[in-house]
Amino acid sequence: MPKLDSIIDAQQFDYETLACVFKIAREMEETKCGDLLRGKIMTSLFYEPSTRTRLSFEAAMKRLGGEVISTENAKEFSSKAKGESLEDSIRVISGYCDVIVLRYYKEGGAKRAQDYSDVPIINAGDGAGQHPTQALLDLYTIKKTFRDIQGLKIAMVGDLINGRTVRSLSYFLAKHFPDNEIFFISPGRVRMREDIKGYLDRYRLKWNEAENFNGVLSELDVIYQTRVQKERFEDDQAVYEEMMAESEKLIIDRQKLERMKSSAIIMHPLPRLSEIRYCVDKDPRARYFEQARNGLYIRMALLKMVLTGY
Amino acid sequence: MPKLDSIIDAQQFDYETLACVFKIAREMEETKCGDLLRGKIMTSLFYEPSTRTRLSFEAAMKRLGGEVISTENAKEFSSKAKGESLEDSIRVISGYCDVIVLRYYKEGGAKRAQDYSDVPIINAGDGAGQHPTQALLDLYTIKKTFRDIQGLKIAMVGDLINGRTVRSLSYFLAKHFPDNEIFFISPGRVRMREDIKGYLDRYRLKWNEAENFNGVLSELDVIYQTRVQKERFEDDQAVYEEMMAESEKLIIDRQKLERMKSSAIIMHPLPRLSEIRYCVDKDPRARYFEQARNGLYIRMALLKMVLTGY
Amino acid sequence: MPKLDSIIDAQQFDYETLACVFKIAREMEETKCGDLLRGKIMTSLFYEPSTRTRLSFEAAMKRLGGEVISTENAKEFSSKAKGESLEDSIRVISGYCDVIVLRYYKEGGAKRAQDYSDVPIINAGDGAGQHPTQALLDLYTIKKTFRDIQGLKIAMVGDLINGRTVRSLSYFLAKHFPDNEIFFISPGRVRMREDIKGYLDRYRLKWNEAENFNGVLSELDVIYQTRVQKERFEDDQAVYEEMMAESEKLIIDRQKLERMKSSAIIMHPLPRLSEIRYCVDKDPRARYFEQARNGLYIRMALLKMVLTGY
Repeated sequence: MPKLDSIIDAQQFDYETLACVFKIAREMEETKCGDLLRGKIMTSLFYEPSTRTRLSFEAAMKRLGGEVISTENAKEFSSKAKGESLEDSIRVISGYCDVIVLRYYKEGGAKRAQDYSDVPIINAGDGAGQHPTQALLDLYTIKKTFRDIQGLKIAMVGDLINGRTVRSLSYFLAKHFPDNEIFFISPGRVRMREDIKGYLDRYRLKWNEAENFNGVLSELDVIYQTRVQKERFEDDQAVYEEMMAESEKLIIDRQKLERMKSSAIIMHPLPRLSEIRYCVDKDPRARYFEQARNGLYIRMALLKMVLTGY
Repeated sequence: MPKLDSIIDAQQFDYETLACVFKIAREMEETKCGDLLRGKIMTSLFYEPSTRTRLSFEAAMKRLGGEVISTENAKEFSSKAKGESLEDSIRVISGYCDVIVLRYYKEGGAKRAQDYSDVPIINAGDGAGQHPTQALLDLYTIKKTFRDIQGLKIAMVGDLINGRTVRSLSYFLAKHFPDNEIFFISPGRVRMREDIKGYLDRYRLKWNEAENFNGVLSELDVIYQTRVQKERFEDDQAVYEEMMAESEKLIIDRQKLERMKSSAIIMHPLPRLSEIRYCVDKDPRARYFEQARNGLYIRMALLKMVLTGY
Repeated sequence: MPKLDSIIDAQQFDYETLACVFKIAREMEETKCGDLLRGKIMTSLFYEPSTRTRLSFEAAMKRLGGEVISTENAKEFSSKAKGESLEDSIRVISGYCDVIVLRYYKEGGAKRAQDYSDVPIINAGDGAGQHPTQALLDLYTIKKTFRDIQGLKIAMVGDLINGRTVRSLSYFLAKHFPDNEIFFISPGRVRMREDIKGYLDRYRLKWNEAENFNGVLSELDVIYQTRVQKERFEDDQAVYEEMMAESEKLIIDRQKLERMKSSAIIMHPLPRLSEIRYCVDKDPRARYFEQARNGLYIRMALLKMVLTGY
């Protein structure tokens, strides 16, 4: 049986562990709750707010009978304001609880935390770094739909340079499911970075790059849409406006729906702005809310694995 | 048996359901806690802070063995900051839990949420709109004191134009207990609005209007005092000062206590500023803290009804 | 058996109660969790943030099977913003729960709260006032190490004029353990205040005062280091810089470690800035993280004593 202690990044998962996560997530989906983690305490230690992720982890913990202590804005409110290091905070808080779910504002926070913690750390996003539980739930959503993650044409769409989720998903696909084809579709200014493309090449996962859906839309099995991260372009209004204009043609709307395969699915890590029209929500191919709910089952599975040794 | 799904506004309650809420609240007051909601999760989704209301709901849920996940300032902290719609947030969060208690900053929020939620919504106030659980606890407080809500002279005092609670209470009285008399007592500038007066007329509930207690104080059974909502007059210092001056004579103090009936009660939705003097607190007719506590029992009753189908 | 209702200040503890707190804390350390407080609700009512203290209390409550409702920033978010008095807030909230843990921004808050609460108040710090549970965990840490708090040379180091913890600890030592010797070591500007020195004299606890460790370091049994509270000197950059310069020589580093007794311990209420070098952490004499963890057991003991009457 694979061992799962802290959950820091996508790289730590081998194929066997992935299969195990998905199997337990599926069980969670069926049983929905239990007493497995009775008497265990999880700390939500969020140095920047992420209500969705935090509530998802907390619901997961509580569905399994565990308890939660929580801070929503550790950066502003905690002793951090007095200048305490992450390492010291982790040492203290790991003395109170059985697992820490950490959201940090700088890359590498989860790894640093792990080195000083007496209890497992689960990385709930560290700046431009990783957000491994999001990548796992994305993969789980694809797997639930197609059973085998094989022979699929998968488009990743939007602001690919800043998108943490598309990077992690690409990583997972290359390493464990290389027999698929990826289409990176984005405005020219925010293309997928070279490191990931190189990684895909190394694992011989075929990829393409374009600035629109022309020609490929009707062949896609998965459209993974993402929002333009406005806040990253705040300083440059001209660039921002150019970005928004180019993003217009990537919006999923009724016209695009008509050209898509009937078996395709549309995913989105949420929050969604205008990059998927609201009218799309009612289409059975729209899976982003189901995808969010899968996050609950994935996090239940991970908490179980980390806290009971599965 | 009446069915109670979401709790959105006062209008949805018929007489039978009201009676049922009060009966269960009374039972809650006696048993105080239990295991009824074990395994259920409530989300406190507050887009603006209201610590009192939030803690009251959360205590109610926990007294019944349920669990809570919570955000105190969804507007500032959540993905709302990135521009997500209420509807999307509700869809995601309703996938995590069994009931959502929603505080929203704009009228109609609870109704919009209900349309997109997979689980019941309980409206904990939506802007200038409704706050139905407050109205229910007000009514319950009157009922507990007088048994029959009939033949009572009820004064609503203070800033009636902005007061959400007096509006809802008037509504309930008109529809279900028209055999009473209401006195609207306020500075001229912040009188009760015409819509409510028209509504009272329709149900033939007798009402009066005045700018002071002259003549009527010694006849009143219920004085429902409210605070001047300073924040609504921030932009106009002159109006604010005029308001405060006229409010002076509406303050409940020792002199007014002496002229009141010994069987009368003084209510207030809290927070209280200077509109009831602290010396009044010790008088047995002061019921505002008991009224707040009744909120706990009402909310326990509502959570039970919504989550177990009663 | 001594009776413990609210926990407001260090003065209320007699020797017998102290012994009882420590005995129960030791039991908590061994059993770690239980069902003792099942069905009880604690409110964390924090008028200023103190994540460490809040999470410690909440973990303590949950380890004993109790429930928590919580607000992290009552000052900014609650009805306080509308001008409600502490007394009114306490009256309302004490109607929801079984115990209130209160952090207030002004001295005397806990006492005021106690006067109006229907349930026990535990003071989690009130401005420049007291923070009794911190003093108890400090004392407990010394007791666990040396068994008898007797014949020890105890240095209190740093910003002694603003340090709440060193004041309370001095108080406890004088009253219950006078057979020790205290060394106040601080920059001249932030010496221990006269009131505490007078108190020590009254109980004949021997004390000394210096601006550095010269001569005494190798004799000390306990070094209680504290941080310079930068925020107290914000207005005067010159004073602040002078303070920091004089504090330099008080920093615990590798050189000082070499001159200390092998049986000595280093304590710190945390958060720690640069006044203890990180390299010290690995030395077995560094006890500040264990000290923080002792806070959990002390708070479990206090909650048990307050809620079940022990």
